[in-house]
Amino acid sequence: MDPIFNFSAGPAILPEEVLQQAREEMLDWHGSSMSVMEMSHRGIEFMSIAAKVESDLRELASIPANYKILFLSGGASSQFAMVPMNLLRGKKSADYINTGEWSQKAIKEAKKYCTVNIAASSAAENFSCAPTQDRWTLDPAAAYVHYTPNETIGGVEFNWVPDVDANVPLVSDMSSSILSRPLDVTRFGLIYAGAQKNMGPAGLTIVIVREDLLGVTLPGTPTMFDYKIHADNDSMYNTPPTYAMYIMGLVLEWLKRNGGLVAMEKVNIAKSKLLYDLLDTSDFYHCPVAKSDRSRMNVPFTLKNAELDGTFLQQSQERGLIQLKGHRSVGGMRASIYNAMPIEGLVALVEFMREFEINHA
Amino acid sequence: MDPIFNFSAGPAILPEEVLQQAREEMLDWHGSSMSVMEMSHRGIEFMSIAAKVESDLRELASIPANYKILFLSGGASSQFAMVPMNLLRGKKSADYINTGEWSQKAIKEAKKYCTVNIAASSAAENFSCAPTQDRWTLDPAAAYVHYTPNETIGGVEFNWVPDVDANVPLVSDMSSSILSRPLDVTRFGLIYAGAQKNMGPAGLTIVIVREDLLGVTLPGTPTMFDYKIHADNDSMYNTPPTYAMYIMGLVLEWLKRNGGLVAMEKVNIAKSKLLYDLLDTSDFYHCPVAKSDRSRMNVPFTLKNAELDGTFLQQSQERGLIQLKGHRSVGGMRASIYNAMPIEGLVALVEFMREFEINHA
Repeated sequence: MDPIFNFSAGPAILPEEVLQQAREEMLDWHGSSMSVMEMSHRGIEFMSIAAKVESDLRELASIPANYKILFLSGGASSQFAMVPMNLLRGKKSADYINTGEWSQKAIKEAKKYCTVNIAASSAAENFSCAPTQDRWTLDPAAAYVHYTPNETIGGVEFNWVPDVDANVPLVSDMSSSILSRPLDVTRFGLIYAGAQKNMGPAGLTIVIVREDLLGVTLPGTPTMFDYKIHADNDSMYNTPPTYAMYIMGLVLEWLKRNGGLVAMEKVNIAKSKLLYDLLDTSDFYHCPVAKSDRSRMNVPFTLKNAELDGTFLQQSQERGLIQLKGHRSVGGMRASIYNAMPIEGLVALVEFMREFEINHA
Repeated sequence: MDPIFNFSAGPAILPEEVLQQAREEMLDWHGSSMSVMEMSHRGIEFMSIAAKVESDLRELASIPANYKILFLSGGASSQFAMVPMNLLRGKKSADYINTGEWSQKAIKEAKKYCTVNIAASSAAENFSCAPTQDRWTLDPAAAYVHYTPNETIGGVEFNWVPDVDANVPLVSDMSSSILSRPLDVTRFGLIYAGAQKNMGPAGLTIVIVREDLLGVTLPGTPTMFDYKIHADNDSMYNTPPTYAMYIMGLVLEWLKRNGGLVAMEKVNIAKSKLLYDLLDTSDFYHCPVAKSDRSRMNVPFTLKNAELDGTFLQQSQERGLIQLKGHRSVGGMRASIYNAMPIEGLVALVEFMREFEINHA
């Protein structure tokens, strides 16, 4: 049987070595006679796992000491409220960049808590590009600037970090691109990311936040939505999602063994280039995203003849190329090619797509 | 080597069969060539897992059709805010029963959102009992009545369900006792429980709620804290903690194979009796909880001579009886004996304790 390549947008493919190690350790972690799932989060065994996850993430992403790393739950959808609840700090408005579905969800939730200034938008281009910074109208009085560097559904990625006023923290939803390339954390006030795309299983959310931003929340903020509570308790104010943290730890160890973020970026450029080169040299397929702003993680594409979509999806699945269906809101196809997707997956996908074109053009 | 028995209060012991099945399916769930961690939550594979978890829980706990089952994250600590944010429904106060540390956390958080009437308290008895209902002063105008039927730290359990006004929903934090005995869901407006004690891994929270209570939230309630959003989206408004749901599903199948909640209650009575009988016939050990209100799940006890605590913990651990240390807030020892703890674990613990008494009395 052909190998299976899983192009799910998330929860998504994990490195096979990670799953193998998780299998081996399932009933007995390091001679403890316990599964990691069975460990008290305050016991020495799990505390050592948690400390290693944090230090490995700090090392891989070069996170300075004045940034806290929080291990939370609730996904980016919870962050959409937590960010304004914690970062408004007495101010009344925030700047948001609107580049597609995930930006819009963040904007909609923020409007519950403050005036949202849409500082830039690619709505006029049907969200097919990242608006260049000369089109941004930032408000120096804004509490923060929020943007989505990779739109998982639209497949639009910022290949640059915005320049913002030093007094206005930059907030970034990196759910679908974190750890896919080197990162200068010092450019950001706060970074958040669900783990279930590039870091681990669903149910774990990472927040990296400059600690001087913490300590003031809106009235009525739930204790569990207060970053400072989690920061002061080393993410153990309550029971964290322990097993998801353990799996993320295995993913981080895999990243370190494979050259870290510099090596990941090289591979991710090579992988995405294989697919974009095909899309650009074919009249049969189409990618709607501006060339300069194409995501290395999520590649949406359509067939010129949409009536062939069903056949494409069926035949690709028969070839072991699974979960290629586009998001229900946009249709077509989407290949999500996170760190854990081997380049062989792209080779197999491109080979299938060339054959399919020949057979159906 | 002796078998290991894990008395952790949570995250806690899981049935060995569950862990074995999870190990076997880690890299390939039912021929899908995917780990459950790698499945899109909206794909047919995971949707089938989610549907089975819900129907098995509905069957095991006899949950009527007019109750929604929600699969959330954030633990009981998030519920402490979600309950008032969703159940005040225009009212200004709620009744709370104070029976120990977890009640008090719920009360403290609720005070952010409403007037809390302490309708009963066992503070005068140092939280060593469940206040009988003749001591309750319920307010007919309260939005709801909240209680904690099993105090995980104090080891106090209600062996009866309170009678409340039919118009005032009863809310219950069942984190450490859910599925340990049969349950009449119709007596409750809302039940919540973190999964990490009696149902599965950390990172998953179950809410069982009568659907007519949903639809009105406090201003400023985060979307992710709105029960109705989750109910209307079958707990897929955002990505749920998929792997934790899968493990919980395996636990529910194990419960069904082993006779369901009626059988669990019998075993739990037998297991806890072994330990309480020893505590009651010894001058060497002491259990601070009133006999009528002793928990079947969490058994706190002390040694008359606290100087022996360290020796007790060290020798018990050497015998494979692990995680017996009492909660940091109360000291002493605590044996948490959830559904997954086999009766052999209690036999071994009692045997060790008798020997220890003989050697140190």
